[in-house]
Amino acid sequence: MGKAHAFAYRSALAAFPDIPVPMLKMIADVNAAGAAKAAHQYGFEKSSGNWRDLINDPSIDVVSITTPNVLHKEMALAAIAAGKHVHCEKPLSPTLKDSEEMLKAAETKGVTTQVGFNYIKNPMLKVARAMIAAGELGEITGFRGIHAEDYMHDPANPWTWRIDPSGGPGVIADLGSHIIGMARFLLGPIASVNADVETVIKQRPKSRGSNEMVPVLVDDIARILVRFEQGFGGTIEANWVKTGRNMQLGFEIEGSKGSLAFTQERFNELKFYKAGGNIRDKGFTTIESGPQHPSYGGFCVAGGHQLGFNDLKTIEMAEFLGSIASGTAAGPDFREACEIQKVVEAAILSSKAGASCVKI
Amino acid sequence: MGKAHAFAYRSALAAFPDIPVPMLKMIADVNAAGAAKAAHQYGFEKSSGNWRDLINDPSIDVVSITTPNVLHKEMALAAIAAGKHVHCEKPLSPTLKDSEEMLKAAETKGVTTQVGFNYIKNPMLKVARAMIAAGELGEITGFRGIHAEDYMHDPANPWTWRIDPSGGPGVIADLGSHIIGMARFLLGPIASVNADVETVIKQRPKSRGSNEMVPVLVDDIARILVRFEQGFGGTIEANWVKTGRNMQLGFEIEGSKGSLAFTQERFNELKFYKAGGNIRDKGFTTIESGPQHPSYGGFCVAGGHQLGFNDLKTIEMAEFLGSIASGTAAGPDFREACEIQKVVEAAILSSKAGASCVKI
Amino acid sequence: MGKAHAFAYRSALAAFPDIPVPMLKMIADVNAAGAAKAAHQYGFEKSSGNWRDLINDPSIDVVSITTPNVLHKEMALAAIAAGKHVHCEKPLSPTLKDSEEMLKAAETKGVTTQVGFNYIKNPMLKVARAMIAAGELGEITGFRGIHAEDYMHDPANPWTWRIDPSGGPGVIADLGSHIIGMARFLLGPIASVNADVETVIKQRPKSRGSNEMVPVLVDDIARILVRFEQGFGGTIEANWVKTGRNMQLGFEIEGSKGSLAFTQERFNELKFYKAGGNIRDKGFTTIESGPQHPSYGGFCVAGGHQLGFNDLKTIEMAEFLGSIASGTAAGPDFREACEIQKVVEAAILSSKAGASCVKI
Amino acid sequence: MGKAHAFAYRSALAAFPDIPVPMLKMIADVNAAGAAKAAHQYGFEKSSGNWRDLINDPSIDVVSITTPNVLHKEMALAAIAAGKHVHCEKPLSPTLKDSEEMLKAAETKGVTTQVGFNYIKNPMLKVARAMIAAGELGEITGFRGIHAEDYMHDPANPWTWRIDPSGGPGVIADLGSHIIGMARFLLGPIASVNADVETVIKQRPKSRGSNEMVPVLVDDIARILVRFEQGFGGTIEANWVKTGRNMQLGFEIEGSKGSLAFTQERFNELKFYKAGGNIRDKGFTTIESGPQHPSYGGFCVAGGHQLGFNDLKTIEMAEFLGSIASGTAAGPDFREACEIQKVVEAAILSSKAGASCVKI
Repeated sequence: MGKAHAFAYRSALAAFPDIPVPMLKMIADVNAAGAAKAAHQYGFEKSSGNWRDLINDPSIDVVSITTPNVLHKEMALAAIAAGKHVHCEKPLSPTLKDSEEMLKAAETKGVTTQVGFNYIKNPMLKVARAMIAAGELGEITGFRGIHAEDYMHDPANPWTWRIDPSGGPGVIADLGSHIIGMARFLLGPIASVNADVETVIKQRPKSRGSNEMVPVLVDDIARILVRFEQGFGGTIEANWVKTGRNMQLGFEIEGSKGSLAFTQERFNELKFYKAGGNIRDKGFTTIESGPQHPSYGGFCVAGGHQLGFNDLKTIEMAEFLGSIASGTAAGPDFREACEIQKVVEAAILSSKAGASCVKI
Repeated sequence: MGKAHAFAYRSALAAFPDIPVPMLKMIADVNAAGAAKAAHQYGFEKSSGNWRDLINDPSIDVVSITTPNVLHKEMALAAIAAGKHVHCEKPLSPTLKDSEEMLKAAETKGVTTQVGFNYIKNPMLKVARAMIAAGELGEITGFRGIHAEDYMHDPANPWTWRIDPSGGPGVIADLGSHIIGMARFLLGPIASVNADVETVIKQRPKSRGSNEMVPVLVDDIARILVRFEQGFGGTIEANWVKTGRNMQLGFEIEGSKGSLAFTQERFNELKFYKAGGNIRDKGFTTIESGPQHPSYGGFCVAGGHQLGFNDLKTIEMAEFLGSIASGTAAGPDFREACEIQKVVEAAILSSKAGASCVKI
Repeated sequence: MGKAHAFAYRSALAAFPDIPVPMLKMIADVNAAGAAKAAHQYGFEKSSGNWRDLINDPSIDVVSITTPNVLHKEMALAAIAAGKHVHCEKPLSPTLKDSEEMLKAAETKGVTTQVGFNYIKNPMLKVARAMIAAGELGEITGFRGIHAEDYMHDPANPWTWRIDPSGGPGVIADLGSHIIGMARFLLGPIASVNADVETVIKQRPKSRGSNEMVPVLVDDIARILVRFEQGFGGTIEANWVKTGRNMQLGFEIEGSKGSLAFTQERFNELKFYKAGGNIRDKGFTTIESGPQHPSYGGFCVAGGHQLGFNDLKTIEMAEFLGSIASGTAAGPDFREACEIQKVVEAAILSSKAGASCVKI
Repeated sequence: MGKAHAFAYRSALAAFPDIPVPMLKMIADVNAAGAAKAAHQYGFEKSSGNWRDLINDPSIDVVSITTPNVLHKEMALAAIAAGKHVHCEKPLSPTLKDSEEMLKAAETKGVTTQVGFNYIKNPMLKVARAMIAAGELGEITGFRGIHAEDYMHDPANPWTWRIDPSGGPGVIADLGSHIIGMARFLLGPIASVNADVETVIKQRPKSRGSNEMVPVLVDDIARILVRFEQGFGGTIEANWVKTGRNMQLGFEIEGSKGSLAFTQERFNELKFYKAGGNIRDKGFTTIESGPQHPSYGGFCVAGGHQLGFNDLKTIEMAEFLGSIASGTAAGPDFREACEIQKVVEAAILSSKAGASCVKI
């Protein structure tokens, strides 16, 4: 993920000429040699094997934190204390309690924050959000969202920090936070959940090929009934054992006047159905991304050429830098990350109580 | 639906040469002239404006009931009492209690029964079921099913018998029973549910264009967390207000070794992912229906020509007639219909109790 | 193909109540026992091992010819001489010369004819044609058509009557005639061609598994540049060695105001692009077949349920029977079949002359 | 296109750590202020309003030419004379004759060259090429390629340099060169063509909204029958008036053992059919791009995240820089561009001679 950030900072000005000019100052990594190599490769001035060097450098205004979740808090608090603006990868921290402490620190200090929910930076999702906000779908009646991948589907996949409970929950934090964040981005707050959160693969090898098995204490699949504050309902699934799926992050939204369907598997497309008109011709229209959909035009002047994942990350970083200049959070900031985490923790609580309803 | 049955009985022998030869005897409809016209058009010998004529005709062995739900029970009981084999459209009756009475009558009398869950007669679904049964997907870890259409999405759509509570629940019985039945067909019994069942459009015009509004007492959307007896979980949605959808009946199933994806919108296709092999070439394979997938070959000797909806209905009727001859229920019979209805009623119960867990 | 006809005649009245009532009289096949079995299975009154019995039966008004191409002419001429209306499978005969003789006989006798170009009976293609005729695509600028399958792709596939030159050309007649006919149905006559027609697999086993090889004298692939009478151009491909394709019969048509895309692989869908309107929302709309697209409603009252191949055949036969009653050819009749064959023969001629331009 | 180059040079090292480190030296543009702004935005050291400043700067080793076609030759010859390695956008120049002069100059001077056929830098196309080269499709039997867009489809679109004949042919050079190059990349040289190359919109406004019309002297659509040196045939279409298409650059390739299908509209996917195995499961597999497909891994370590257009351009530039270091042309170089242009000019020649066969 550090790589994605480096790519993004390098390209941000090229796509967004009006943002403050990013100066690539320092890469820190526990492996000092790796940090030096990365700094060379990504065009940063300096590197260090000690992340505190970065915090202590007064010439640095902005910090990106892309370490394992368990380390976010300490780093973020230090960076905030030093008055730096902080971008932190998601989930913000292993627990809502810690995240709220980070939020409080940032707001007290007055620094700008952002959290790495990159997928919603997609121009097509901004179109979707604008359609919904303008009432083009009419009154919304339902949401059906999912983020499923298969990187943990093989029981032979060994223990990693991702499944150490010290890092927080499992898939519901890792992938679930993306689809929860996307739901909120498009449709506003979630008011309550009933959830079924489970560990499918109960133990994993300590390391690849090892015979020593470690019990898995985090979740593999979360299935959630949600009710939004606006009144309508929906479902959300997070799943990292869905064999064959690389990036099934998607949703269907329907309203009284129209519907949307989207999947990150083809994220340069948005499917849109608009009720009314000649019944002979009705159906979902597949809209392809183009310069008519901001911020596509920053990357290419012609439609249909397609953005890639790193371009979404570039939009994210450019918006973050722009928000520092303007003083207006581009979002999702630490506050939004906490709101997402509230849903995550409510879902876990619900599941432990037999999927009973938990208000947020 | 009567039309679909007539089509199916007419074509059954052509596609299935080994079944008992169907003799098309009588069509009964409350509208005697309509019945006469239909008998002419569909090639039946006689017609009547009184359904009891059909029951009382000793030359008739098999009866199809395709009336509104509220009439099923009386007709079925009369037919069973007369010793006729009965095919009844789904849902079997408005309440589980009534359905169980019908089941008991049929089993006591020893007649063969079937209920109109036509979509599972699709050759591609038989392939899916066989794959799962043979363990080709490995250990199943999840199911994600839906049946959504939009025929009730417009608030201007007036009251119909479909939304009169005397006919039973709303979408959960009408569409939900299809996806519940499909889930059971593929994966076996459902052990428990947590459900959120809601009425989205609270009142409708008494008739088209009328200013008089009638409160809607049945559900428009049902969202259900399910747990199967085999241990894995899933979600099911039934929705008849999903704007833009004509036939979104589909599922995704994943297991430790593979995955399936299907939608009735393209029901001559089955998407199959098989783990293992050359990682360079991995992905979902789109299998097109052909004579290698029974019972496709009864309709066409060459692959890719595609079956239509009426062909599924023909398979259903042919299997029913075959099951009468063999004395082995082809399914889904009255018993299976009751099992499906148990899930429906459990979901409604759960929803009334705040989506709490209800065992089946 | 005889089976498809039988299915279609059986179902025609059920879908089209206003046509003359079909009476299923006789099936003839060189194998008398097979004919008897088929007559039983498809509900025909009689059968015979001698096709002339069918011709000689004065109670029979309509004949369907579904034998190998080489036999069409003799049978059709006999049927016409007996005053019967004739439906003949495509291609009409092995040579244009023979086909024109058949046409002349039919027109002289005044019988109604039809030829089995079933795919254009698809409701979605009637929509496409209507759109074009109404100018909804603006001025047409191009056509890109193909009919590719793979039933001959395996060099181990043995000799069959399909590749005996006595039956006429190879894929250009067998599949090419479909896409040529579809092009004409949608866009009118083809004025000239430049074609490259080739035999890819030069010899085949005399029978399955045999070591004796027979030279293949008919074509496997035809690629054609076409120019329509209306002035615009296009390409057509026919290919029966396209590995992996079961039914790639499709086209793309563009005009100054819109475009269409269609494939028989998903023949209940038509993709439509209409220029103009909000650029934010532009894209191809996937229209799903429904009762708003005649003749879908004869089969099912609800959209999205889908027609199958045999339903297309039913529409074809119903239109044929209707045309006999009305005295107006429903098409494609023998005349249209001859026009299609002119394109086929012009393409072969062009190919032999180095793909030089041949006027039609 | 200059922007795409700038993006690519900026990101090249980040994705390809082993290439020579790119130093971003100078941007030249006829608009000096624009050049200065671009240099700032893309992180170049200097800028100039005079492209010769760039040629004359001895610290510059590598030049990218992204001007209108008509200017390529003069600039490239000057750069070559100055001993610089040259990347030139496609088509190399308006005429084959000029391009060959550029080629000769480059080879005489011994500089490394590359031409901007970016789409073949796609990891999925490298997979396709490797499959074909390894015989995984068996003996190839056909190719069906197209590059269609719609940026000229509207007759109200005014004259631009793209349609000034001084810049060379129209769509056949602009888009046709991409699909011709792709065909050659995958399948080797094209031996002969029969082509139909036409101007559909015969005149255009001199400027947007003007009443003064200018005759259009370049082509809008080219349709070509091709025969490859290896013996098999195919078709190629280039079309810039195909309403509704943003990026229909794609192909289908079939061989005796398998098939491929690709479209740039979903360029992170490759559809692959492999003959043999369990007939029940046969179909096209949709392969999603991932780190198992070089050079995807340079951009992202996880599959399914997707590359964008600018990433393809980054691969292109990185390979160019790598080829300078290694002294081995990464291709497509000036020589390959001339080979592509030979096909273009042969097609135009063929079309003028009634689509007769022209050898290359």
